[in-house]
Amino acid sequence: MGEFDLIRRFFQRPVRRAALGVGDDCALLAPAPGMHLAVSSDMLVEGRHFFADVDPEALGHKALAVNLSDLAACGARPLAFTLALSLPRADSDWLERFSRGLLALADAHGCELVGGDTTGGPLNICITVFGEVPAGQALLRSGARAGDDLWVSGTLGDARLALEALRGERTLPAPWLAQARERLERPTPRVALGQALRGLARSAIDVSDGLVGDLGHILQASGVGARIDTQNAIELIATGAISTKASGAFDHETLLRCALAGGDDYELLFTAAPEHRAEVQAAGQATATPVARIGTIEAAPGLRLVDAQGQSLHQQYSSYDHFR
Amino acid sequence: MGEFDLIRRFFQRPVRRAALGVGDDCALLAPAPGMHLAVSSDMLVEGRHFFADVDPEALGHKALAVNLSDLAACGARPLAFTLALSLPRADSDWLERFSRGLLALADAHGCELVGGDTTGGPLNICITVFGEVPAGQALLRSGARAGDDLWVSGTLGDARLALEALRGERTLPAPWLAQARERLERPTPRVALGQALRGLARSAIDVSDGLVGDLGHILQASGVGARIDTQNAIELIATGAISTKASGAFDHETLLRCALAGGDDYELLFTAAPEHRAEVQAAGQATATPVARIGTIEAAPGLRLVDAQGQSLHQQYSSYDHFR
Repeated sequence: MGEFDLIRRFFQRPVRRAALGVGDDCALLAPAPGMHLAVSSDMLVEGRHFFADVDPEALGHKALAVNLSDLAACGARPLAFTLALSLPRADSDWLERFSRGLLALADAHGCELVGGDTTGGPLNICITVFGEVPAGQALLRSGARAGDDLWVSGTLGDARLALEALRGERTLPAPWLAQARERLERPTPRVALGQALRGLARSAIDVSDGLVGDLGHILQASGVGARIDTQNAIELIATGAISTKASGAFDHETLLRCALAGGDDYELLFTAAPEHRAEVQAAGQATATPVARIGTIEAAPGLRLVDAQGQSLHQQYSSYDHFR
Repeated sequence: MGEFDLIRRFFQRPVRRAALGVGDDCALLAPAPGMHLAVSSDMLVEGRHFFADVDPEALGHKALAVNLSDLAACGARPLAFTLALSLPRADSDWLERFSRGLLALADAHGCELVGGDTTGGPLNICITVFGEVPAGQALLRSGARAGDDLWVSGTLGDARLALEALRGERTLPAPWLAQARERLERPTPRVALGQALRGLARSAIDVSDGLVGDLGHILQASGVGARIDTQNAIELIATGAISTKASGAFDHETLLRCALAGGDDYELLFTAAPEHRAEVQAAGQATATPVARIGTIEAAPGLRLVDAQGQSLHQQYSSYDHFR
């Protein structure tokens, strides 16, 4: 199987919305009038973002999911994506499963594969995704204001628990591991919620490196600070996939660390004015996405993590950095 | 230097045309009314597309140049690009030189860096580029018609000669090597010519894998064949960077092989109706890009390479395939 056969066989499909898809020098997108095009790129590297033995179908899903999550954080509607793929070899079985996972998620979001590149080399997957958002309505990191509620979708920490179990750093009962692993390997981008939050959320980001680190980007971009009651936050959002009851099996510090600095969650972290609380809850319900209020934006810079008694936590939490 | 310092220091610059640049979940492009957005992705892998000891500044140039070449082949005007970068380590000196080469070419074409990703891993550079082209005016591979002239810009084969010299497969006098290496490592995307050919060329592609292979894509997409007088073609286009006089230093078969199947040329190969010959020449002159007529599109499928006596060449030429 040569390079062009590979593309035709696994990745070339008719496009419906794009003006031109895979198979020319460029793809052609036809943006709708009044729309901005939201663009995001993510690169996944074997050994860094996934284990060498990961299910190729899950990997295909995740490679697109992390990009769709960026569109969600902007409130954009997915349109199309390009796929650049470096492969050690052209393995039909691997490609069939990878493309199945990738294209199933793409179809679920009406997001068309319009172009890309294939080359030999160490396994590396780079997807660039395109979405549309009405001009001026994109959710940005820079819009948080003192007094805003701090919200998070879904639950945080499951992916981290799975990662630690897969690394042999902890043992999880099989059913919990299966659930946590599903969150690590097949994250759900909160695409519908992101769009529903347009006009409601004042700022948003997706949680990919860990809550504390990603919230830091909002605080820095907005020139504000925040306070989180960690006891309340843990009860609302920690390791929910394993069920609230199961979370009793973990010590407080583990729950805190996984929820605040776990990473790979792909939930939305956003702020909204308190007068929009009911509408934010309604947006969550309308999109079948749980949302929880975990803190408050404050004028004083910095993040204040406090316990149930309002005392500051001494533990520092930091997010993943590829070069530290 | 952490991941976010690295981005801020080397890759974050104010945008002028995009609605939002580096530093949020997505970049935002504001497409002009009536324009299609041309999109292309290319991934460059160490050991495949460049040598480990390549000058980082040249590598930065080339990584964007190969993408701009795809825009040129569509007749699109460059607007913006994203950069996803996998790096073995955060080396300030390397990053300074890489970003200098990358951004100098970007500035020369008014093409803004709007987003991307950085990660640890084997060196891999994935750029996705965006350009605009009036709806319905993009140059495609599928428009060639029997009777069209077959044109190529610039010269072909220099990059291949340099590659063979750098691999130790041949010796080149130092000045020739310097010239050929410049073509290999710092190719010139024919962006202005591509735009000047809108409305003139009926089909176009950029020569990245070799003339024969890339012409094959036009022939297949257009359902036509072609004839090339190879003697005439060599005189017009072979290894021009080393000068016509110098080309006498190479045997006929070497010139033929480098020009027809060399690869990494990033010249435009295009077809146009014979009645537009003078306008095509004028487009070349207006954009300071040599153009040469090397063959004819014919109705019968297949590529016929003939010598000065009209006899078919027996030698087969094939282009590079990452998986063959």
